[in-house]
Formats: sequence, structure tokens, C-alpha cells
Amino acid sequence: MDVVNLAAKLSTFADHWQPRTVAEFNGQDVMVAKTHGEFVWHKHADADDFFLVLKGNLVIEMRDRSVSLGPGELFVVPRGVEHRPVAREEVHLLLIEPTGTPNTGDAATAAVRRVI
Amino acid sequence: MDVVNLAAKLSTFADHWQPRTVAEFNGQDVMVAKTHGEFVWHKHADADDFFLVLKGNLVIEMRDRSVSLGPGELFVVPRGVEHRPVAREEVHLLLIEPTGTPNTGDAATAAVRRVI
Repeated sequence: MDVVNLAAKLSTFADHWQPRTVAEFNGQDVMVAKTHGEFVWHKHADADDFFLVLKGNLVIEMRDRSVSLGPGELFVVPRGVEHRPVAREEVHLLLIEPTGTPNTGDAATAAVRRVI
Repeated sequence: MDVVNLAAKLSTFADHWQPRTVAEFNGQDVMVAKTHGEFVWHKHADADDFFLVLKGNLVIEMRDRSVSLGPGELFVVPRGVEHRPVAREEVHLLLIEPTGTPNTGDAATAAVRRVI
């Protein structure tokens, strides 16, 4: 593989909630995404969900609490925990999940996996 | 878990080549580390090795080529590939490896796992 420049990868697309896979390791997909607005409530039964904010501020709502992440801050939503990411402004993210994990928690509604 | 602020975690220690675990997900340890100088040549037989540079410039030498990573750039050294990280200046890193992976490729010489 080549070196991945996250800002360069993010500059290649503008749509929201459509993660792009930029690397793979140990069965995990490393993805970049742009988000704005509210995503759907969902959970991943078998996958912890890694978020690292690169730009902007992301709130991750859970049923019993919320966390707020700025640039350089990360959070792991444990498997099985319902959550809803909310971006009041455009947010750039690094996401890591096991390869094949549907981003909505449901293959029927998930974003298509795209490798860039 | 709580939100992890990478800069705050990095501010709590000064030693080099001694990764600290700041989060775990899907059997992987998320670590921060400071490096300066040349590490040892090593490989991980069963683990791909994820590097994301947060500050400074890191060269990862492999036997057949080298790559150079600046801030916001990531690289995965595939399992089984010999490599030597070299930092000509102090470099701050985010590292991800399966929990328990010895950082030198050898449990006898590896840094002790520390969770902060």
C-alpha cells in the first residue's frame, strides 16, 4: 500500500454519511467520512465503532448519555450500544470498523462500501 | 469509556518508544507514542501494524523501500514485513495493533503494556 494522506482523501468527495475505505488492517476497514446533520439511531451487534474527529465537532448520542468530540479526540462506541452521531456543522472523521460492518447497523440501508 | 483527547494523553509522558494504550476496540489496542531516533528492525508475524502521524515526520524503513509520513498521514505495515521506524525529530504517533502485540516483535524485548 501507499501512504494515505487523510486530507487528500477527504478532498476527493463532498457527500455526507458515505464513508470511503482508505486502508485495511487486521480485518478492520479504516475509513474517512464527511458528516453534517443527524444520522440514524443504530447499533452494531458484533462490532465496536471507532470515531476520531479530524475537523469540526461531533456529538455521539447514546440512550443514557452523549459525548462531544473535537479535532484530535476519539471515542469507541461499544458493540451493542445504540448511538446516533450528530454533526451541527460539517465534520471530517476517521472511522474504523471490521470490514463489512454496515454503517447503519443494517445491510439493507447501509452505505455501499467504497475503496479510494 | 470517556472521550480520549490525544494531545492531552501525549502530554502526560515524555519517554520515547514506550506506547501507552488509550482505547481498545475489536481486539485492537489504540496507543499513543513519542519517538525519536531509530527503532529496531522487527516484524509482527500475525499483526498488521497501523501508524498515523500526529506531529513530526516518521520514516518507516522496509527492506525493499521506505515511506515518509507527515502529520495526518497513515500507513499500514503488513504482517510479516520487516520494518524499522526512524524519527529524525520527535514524532507523535497514533498506533493500532492487536492487544498484546509486542512492539519489538519479541515479547522478551517489548515495552510493557501501559494503559493511561
